[in-house]
Amino acid sequence: MIRFNSDYLEGAHPRILERLMETNMAQTPGYGEDRFCERARDIIRALCDAPDADVHFLVGGTQTNATVLSAALLPYQGVISADTGHIAVHETGAIEASGHKVIALPGRDGKLDAGQVSEYCREHFADESHEHMVMPAAVYISNPTEVGTLYSRDELNALRAVCDRWSLLLFLDGARLGYGLASPENTLDLPFIAGVCDVFYIGGTKQGLLFGEALVIQNAALKRNFRYSIKQKGGMLAKGRLLGIQFEEILKDGLYMELSEHAIALAMKLKAALRALNVPFLVDSPTNQQFPILPNVVLSMLGQKYSYATIKQVDAQRTAVRFCTSWATRETDVDRLIEDLKALIQ
Amino acid sequence: MIRFNSDYLEGAHPRILERLMETNMAQTPGYGEDRFCERARDIIRALCDAPDADVHFLVGGTQTNATVLSAALLPYQGVISADTGHIAVHETGAIEASGHKVIALPGRDGKLDAGQVSEYCREHFADESHEHMVMPAAVYISNPTEVGTLYSRDELNALRAVCDRWSLLLFLDGARLGYGLASPENTLDLPFIAGVCDVFYIGGTKQGLLFGEALVIQNAALKRNFRYSIKQKGGMLAKGRLLGIQFEEILKDGLYMELSEHAIALAMKLKAALRALNVPFLVDSPTNQQFPILPNVVLSMLGQKYSYATIKQVDAQRTAVRFCTSWATRETDVDRLIEDLKALIQ
Amino acid sequence: MIRFNSDYLEGAHPRILERLMETNMAQTPGYGEDRFCERARDIIRALCDAPDADVHFLVGGTQTNATVLSAALLPYQGVISADTGHIAVHETGAIEASGHKVIALPGRDGKLDAGQVSEYCREHFADESHEHMVMPAAVYISNPTEVGTLYSRDELNALRAVCDRWSLLLFLDGARLGYGLASPENTLDLPFIAGVCDVFYIGGTKQGLLFGEALVIQNAALKRNFRYSIKQKGGMLAKGRLLGIQFEEILKDGLYMELSEHAIALAMKLKAALRALNVPFLVDSPTNQQFPILPNVVLSMLGQKYSYATIKQVDAQRTAVRFCTSWATRETDVDRLIEDLKALIQ
Amino acid sequence: MIRFNSDYLEGAHPRILERLMETNMAQTPGYGEDRFCERARDIIRALCDAPDADVHFLVGGTQTNATVLSAALLPYQGVISADTGHIAVHETGAIEASGHKVIALPGRDGKLDAGQVSEYCREHFADESHEHMVMPAAVYISNPTEVGTLYSRDELNALRAVCDRWSLLLFLDGARLGYGLASPENTLDLPFIAGVCDVFYIGGTKQGLLFGEALVIQNAALKRNFRYSIKQKGGMLAKGRLLGIQFEEILKDGLYMELSEHAIALAMKLKAALRALNVPFLVDSPTNQQFPILPNVVLSMLGQKYSYATIKQVDAQRTAVRFCTSWATRETDVDRLIEDLKALIQ
Repeated sequence: MIRFNSDYLEGAHPRILERLMETNMAQTPGYGEDRFCERARDIIRALCDAPDADVHFLVGGTQTNATVLSAALLPYQGVISADTGHIAVHETGAIEASGHKVIALPGRDGKLDAGQVSEYCREHFADESHEHMVMPAAVYISNPTEVGTLYSRDELNALRAVCDRWSLLLFLDGARLGYGLASPENTLDLPFIAGVCDVFYIGGTKQGLLFGEALVIQNAALKRNFRYSIKQKGGMLAKGRLLGIQFEEILKDGLYMELSEHAIALAMKLKAALRALNVPFLVDSPTNQQFPILPNVVLSMLGQKYSYATIKQVDAQRTAVRFCTSWATRETDVDRLIEDLKALIQ
Repeated sequence: MIRFNSDYLEGAHPRILERLMETNMAQTPGYGEDRFCERARDIIRALCDAPDADVHFLVGGTQTNATVLSAALLPYQGVISADTGHIAVHETGAIEASGHKVIALPGRDGKLDAGQVSEYCREHFADESHEHMVMPAAVYISNPTEVGTLYSRDELNALRAVCDRWSLLLFLDGARLGYGLASPENTLDLPFIAGVCDVFYIGGTKQGLLFGEALVIQNAALKRNFRYSIKQKGGMLAKGRLLGIQFEEILKDGLYMELSEHAIALAMKLKAALRALNVPFLVDSPTNQQFPILPNVVLSMLGQKYSYATIKQVDAQRTAVRFCTSWATRETDVDRLIEDLKALIQ
Repeated sequence: MIRFNSDYLEGAHPRILERLMETNMAQTPGYGEDRFCERARDIIRALCDAPDADVHFLVGGTQTNATVLSAALLPYQGVISADTGHIAVHETGAIEASGHKVIALPGRDGKLDAGQVSEYCREHFADESHEHMVMPAAVYISNPTEVGTLYSRDELNALRAVCDRWSLLLFLDGARLGYGLASPENTLDLPFIAGVCDVFYIGGTKQGLLFGEALVIQNAALKRNFRYSIKQKGGMLAKGRLLGIQFEEILKDGLYMELSEHAIALAMKLKAALRALNVPFLVDSPTNQQFPILPNVVLSMLGQKYSYATIKQVDAQRTAVRFCTSWATRETDVDRLIEDLKALIQ
Repeated sequence: MIRFNSDYLEGAHPRILERLMETNMAQTPGYGEDRFCERARDIIRALCDAPDADVHFLVGGTQTNATVLSAALLPYQGVISADTGHIAVHETGAIEASGHKVIALPGRDGKLDAGQVSEYCREHFADESHEHMVMPAAVYISNPTEVGTLYSRDELNALRAVCDRWSLLLFLDGARLGYGLASPENTLDLPFIAGVCDVFYIGGTKQGLLFGEALVIQNAALKRNFRYSIKQKGGMLAKGRLLGIQFEEILKDGLYMELSEHAIALAMKLKAALRALNVPFLVDSPTNQQFPILPNVVLSMLGQKYSYATIKQVDAQRTAVRFCTSWATRETDVDRLIEDLKALIQ
């Protein structure tokens, strides 16, 4: 079975494990207050051109999202998200469990539009009963989104302006950030993201680390006492250095982007092949997640050799599925998949 | 100014205040453990033909909704509601504040359909990632709904069957229950409601009391230790007898339904008059809330003498508004409103 | 049975009910935005010499405590309370239910001492692991305390200084505030309390109203959006005017203090009689709650005619109990109690 | 600097890292549903003689404690803990953040006594106001405790009986379980623990893994839908196999106990040496944490070469500190420490 169903199927890039080996018996203080974390923080601040940013390392995405939003919102405030947003759908209500409503607006290809956010806020504050409704106070976006799409520089600038207008905090979930930055359609870079967002993270788990998300906080109010929040939410790793060591290794010389580019090249190869076969897509994704709509008969044959994620029944005959590439995907496996698709479809 | 904007504009029916006067200096234990509450509970159990029901008295609706759902749901569970449901819109996130997602499904005239609830649950449990999503565990409906519509006996039976199929608790918010039962289109009665729901309440605040909601619990698991929940949520009134005294008075000899019928008669009179003027409605309501769509020019004239609630801009020229009648509405005021509407529209 | 077990055994002072009668059919907007509430707010601001205070009316004490502390604390912060504090013992974990630890320090006669609060804070911030511990951020005191004792002007000034030193919010629960102000040992007044506290409330439920607590907020940060918090916590009464009408009536011409003085006079009469009988006390209370330690044989006789609250088994033969007087206590009942005590003890 | 301040100063035992290397490029499903986790579960069930146990792997202790207690308690319920318990002191209020009071009883050498738990419950349910208080519903203990002490078989049997009597769930935090089982004073084994507790965990982070705690659930009600809870609390590791791989490796052939025994042998050597020097201890610990009380002058010299944790100022001249040994401690380092202590003290 060759697996394409997600981008967290393997362990970590070999250099990560080697570095963990090398540093294994060094003694360090716990909880992220070690020299490895400190060096990784410095690298991230430099890459983001954000010398005043606070950088924290957390283990996973749901934990990071819940910790950030719990720290950012007052009890009567909520966060606006696209209805496909990870926090709105796939975190078992972690945001609500910390007391906050996820205000889900209909996304367009997984994205929020500055106009709809602004209109929602305008209506909220114009409503004579607005004290009876959850106050919008943050905007959650992911880039790439859960359906693989990207925000442009203009779109993010527009969202920033809306956030300023309505006093909203802008939070970007970058669980797959590298796969976004490596996309042929990307218009962003880390300094721009660090400039436009109040807080965002650079994903590690899906990008070649064993685990880990590097959270970058620019907003001064959110910086205050953030380590209390991490500890309370169960996200303060005792051997915090494991996160610092991994992020230092993958970021210090460009490995992060190299691995991302590898995944994107293979995703684009697969996409082009599917297009050439006239296969339609659920969404036009320029990143490492591809969502072709395939005949069920094709899928049942394919499923004997390859795993993929089932997304949605499109009609009686066809289903939208997801193929992911990643830092670990082998080109030969993609080539084999393409050959088999050609044979099955033509 | 004659106010029609809500059904909680005045104090209480005079008999309620008189009874509070009569009983004022009696000494009783606190927290609802007095003889007045006990008698009111007995009356309610008899009216509902529900001898084993637990009956609790709470002060207001948001408090009651949050207390019930907090007691009914496990941390990873959520409640299904129509997207217009009070808990989904107008309680400042009280349900989320107790940790639970309100799963808002698109309502049809403010109502949930058994089919859509069933389909949502089927999809949830069929999803390979269902552990990553909030588990649906309760259904919240209101009757009359927030837009004045009613569930039929068949619709509630169908919802009950779906709840049994998917292990959901069925909770009916009856903040305006009397106005529903008094409607010409009503097909329900208290014993039916008590039989079909796990828990529901008989509204007092909008029905002639100073304040108060009578919660009727049929579900055995929900009954357990419910008073701890009431106390924790801040809903245990020290002088709980005030609730018992009021409910006993209004329920003991039919005053509750008499007042409800009064409000409905006036609402139907207004509705008929608006229809005769060819005024369209946002929703066809058979209860005490009427939602006509009126020209803005008419409204600006009307607003000098009458208050109403603004619901929604329908187009550049017209706005949907709400007129409420209640136990306290005077027929002469409705007649005057009708006269003025005729003068303005014709 | 003559009841002395609490100070919320009866309804309300007759003037309160009469005023509710008079205003009953007036139409007002809901949720505390009516003219009665506005006038009551003005009276309170004047009595407190606090022209910039925000005043909100809530139904009960647990609700008020939970709403204030939920609005005042960040998720990782807790509130310091005496271990006998109402929030630490008798609110079924309402504070914890909103996410916050009650940091219970050993009280001295129900009171917190500025020194112990300061030492706790100093130790917290000196601890190398303080991020792993709940950050103290508020101090909750009650005056009179749960055991009837009073803070002096000096004690409150000292607490204020400690709060300033450690950035703590000072919150005074005044559920029985009048009974404190009317005590022969009282050194406080409303303007002093309003000056020294960030937030406090003037109790109504135990002081002659049907229900209601008047919350006075001086702290600017806490003022912001407080109505959202009230609504979310289920404390926004639909017919909010009921609270305004009652507080206006009891505060407009000194009735509040008159009733408090009545209760205190009777409590002091009872206390003096018990002292004369050489009855020891669990705590030396100068307010309306008296805690004599009585032989069980005396109590079993007494219990046939009078109700009291059982506080604590002191030894095999004796039990500490509580007798409360209130605005509603009749002097003849106190006299009869004293006679019976004399007969039983001598 | 030779560090003795905690037992999580290094990475992992070399065999753990080697095994992660070997399995690195294997593709597996995520979230703990892989073959490595399944095998590790089977090993744990066998070691515990608990064929029906559910076993889950979580990343850290605070997360595990909060997830278990959040799943185990109803909103109005709390957990009893010794006042030195990790959940009562060192988790930044994580239990309160999920809505529950930690009912802290005074510990004896860090332990709860069955008698005091029983008495607390008896008093709770006997109190006429018990609905106004948090209902005790679980008991949290740690073994070894936070101060290194151990429960005996008899003590745990007595706690079990009390839990049965009062319907309490018994939860044992085994973050350092191996160091307890390897102690010369230990009377427990895994099957006994699995038989006496409703839920407990076998610590990995402090016992030779990079990270990880293996949670063993015996209580049928707690088993239900536990994976939803893990996901919601942010504890579901995407590459869950990392936990399975580590636990399989350390448990499959006795490495876990071998490493524990190593740490205990060195701790006992240090303890004996300190005793021989007549150094008093804050608590008499038979496990890997030793709490000597040392003169400040000695500590200031020692601190130049060794790190330790400062626990508590005992008097003006002396401080209680903590030295930890672990799976990674080198005997030569302990010998050197002993030599230096001898030189400084004699």
